[in-house]
Amino acid sequence: MQVQVNVKDKPYTIYIEKLEKKYFDRKVVLVTNPKVSAFHLRYVLDKITAKDLSIVEVQDGEIYKNIQSIEKILNHCFENRLDRKSLLIALGGGVVGDMCGFCASIYQRGIEFIQIPTTLLAQVDASVGGKTGINNKYGKNLIGTFWQPSAVFVDMHFLSTLESREFSAGLAEIVKMAIAFDVDFFAWLEKSDLLEERNIKIAIQKSLELKAKVVCEDEREEGVRALLNYGHTFAHVIENETAYETYLHGEAVAIGILMANELAKQKGLLEYEDTLRVKKFFLKYKLPTTYDIKNVNEFYEKFFLDKKSVNSKINFILPKKIGQCEIFDNISKNDVIEVLNNFKK
Amino acid sequence: MQVQVNVKDKPYTIYIEKLEKKYFDRKVVLVTNPKVSAFHLRYVLDKITAKDLSIVEVQDGEIYKNIQSIEKILNHCFENRLDRKSLLIALGGGVVGDMCGFCASIYQRGIEFIQIPTTLLAQVDASVGGKTGINNKYGKNLIGTFWQPSAVFVDMHFLSTLESREFSAGLAEIVKMAIAFDVDFFAWLEKSDLLEERNIKIAIQKSLELKAKVVCEDEREEGVRALLNYGHTFAHVIENETAYETYLHGEAVAIGILMANELAKQKGLLEYEDTLRVKKFFLKYKLPTTYDIKNVNEFYEKFFLDKKSVNSKINFILPKKIGQCEIFDNISKNDVIEVLNNFKK
Repeated sequence: MQVQVNVKDKPYTIYIEKLEKKYFDRKVVLVTNPKVSAFHLRYVLDKITAKDLSIVEVQDGEIYKNIQSIEKILNHCFENRLDRKSLLIALGGGVVGDMCGFCASIYQRGIEFIQIPTTLLAQVDASVGGKTGINNKYGKNLIGTFWQPSAVFVDMHFLSTLESREFSAGLAEIVKMAIAFDVDFFAWLEKSDLLEERNIKIAIQKSLELKAKVVCEDEREEGVRALLNYGHTFAHVIENETAYETYLHGEAVAIGILMANELAKQKGLLEYEDTLRVKKFFLKYKLPTTYDIKNVNEFYEKFFLDKKSVNSKINFILPKKIGQCEIFDNISKNDVIEVLNNFKK
Repeated sequence: MQVQVNVKDKPYTIYIEKLEKKYFDRKVVLVTNPKVSAFHLRYVLDKITAKDLSIVEVQDGEIYKNIQSIEKILNHCFENRLDRKSLLIALGGGVVGDMCGFCASIYQRGIEFIQIPTTLLAQVDASVGGKTGINNKYGKNLIGTFWQPSAVFVDMHFLSTLESREFSAGLAEIVKMAIAFDVDFFAWLEKSDLLEERNIKIAIQKSLELKAKVVCEDEREEGVRALLNYGHTFAHVIENETAYETYLHGEAVAIGILMANELAKQKGLLEYEDTLRVKKFFLKYKLPTTYDIKNVNEFYEKFFLDKKSVNSKINFILPKKIGQCEIFDNISKNDVIEVLNNFKK
């Protein structure tokens, strides 16, 4: 099963199937973390071989998605004398993928890289679309590039070792795609048991098809691609406030989607029943649905550090109904504060 | 006088004329260094204004083209809350331009930047073509991106404060273009007094036309653009060995061109008389023509850290005659060592 991502210049394929044996006649550096390595390195090295393959590990977790980890990876590449024809492979979740991609984009002005995502979230979202980056004290993903992978290998095998919390976090991004673009897909997700491999594979494929379409239409997020940030404006503040420690990214997105939905409801866009359908889905898969906002004004202020804010105005991505999101640049501070205050309760 | 650079996606114009008054209705950060600032900031701020303009200075010199300077610029941008629609302006030589461009390419996954080169070298070479980057302990420009400026302003005014050494260093890159691509241009350079403003302006324009053509044909240096590295394989080693302190980049390129010419002569490509013509030109403008290689084998080994070496094989760009360079991937170590030994004497 394959999904084609027809971005300009550099089209590539997402393979939704078991990894196959593959030999690379060049230098390869595989970027991973200790946890993924312990579970899956043997499985991967059994399939992927190269003329010269070495491995570099970075620490697991969003707080290590920083310039120090980037320098570690780059230095490893220099020590191993990678050149412009060499290849990086990201084996891990979104953190590993974002950093590996960023390194690929700036190593000798850009080399190829391949994504082998090992979490559901990375499989359906982070590994596709070419967004790379790191966090800093000012916020999340504030330094980075657009740099497309040469290929993405989505192998269900990796999901076998995934904790159920991580699995659910991936579901949040899948549901995001459905609410943003496809009401039928949402209805199907509601009625399906996504813990069944047959079903989750369908959900992954459908998500990737939707994402590939959006990314091709708008590679650099100048228009429709911004809709993929549905829920994320809130989620980034939540992650920032909790120092990336309390919630997995997908969990923060789930809360962010509910906040966006409340705002949409208040603006007369989304029906009350629809906000409930989404919440019910999250509860079914044990995703968080509440968040204790300590200080509503501080929460609001943090929107402005997010890079999606253009000219100090915040754009909110809100559903007009399930399956159709739009960008709103005219939401007043009062409206947002009110929703945040209600959410607090 | 204008030169159009028709790169894909993002065509831009080089304006070879006096800066004109220009207002930017957005946040602008001007990146410069203390020396350029002292000479020219007033002149520039008299022309360029913006809704919100701030200035960040980095230290002058190739040794400061490093990750610390990049962090300084980026932090300034974050502190001033630049967003995706903001603009960076590079006011300075190649070092400022390369770093400003690199920051623009990774700040929030890429924002626009403008080049206002203040050295002859940056005007004819560094500011055009979208190569950005920094040095590290492994070598020069080893971390960077391809990121095209939105415009380049080449104003002769800045040359008035340029030391003659810096001026000559710029001439080395102009001559490089001539030897690589255009024998008539070389002959014209030989017979013209390039210290005359009328002549240097013609030389700049011609260089930029040649460069624009090459860059458009091959934006990411996968083919013909590599010819622009004529002389640079040697120059980068010289700069590395002398810790970027002894020579200006253009001076190292002059020596590198002479080394390449010796190699070309030895391979039966370039006539002895032509090597003399080039040397004579360099002597006329007081460019260095000798270099004391301490250890020939170490010098040779350092080629391999240069990013232009693909699969641990060194490509040499050599002139077959004046006006026509080609890439050679079959030069034996013995030949190079012999040329280096002779150059040493």
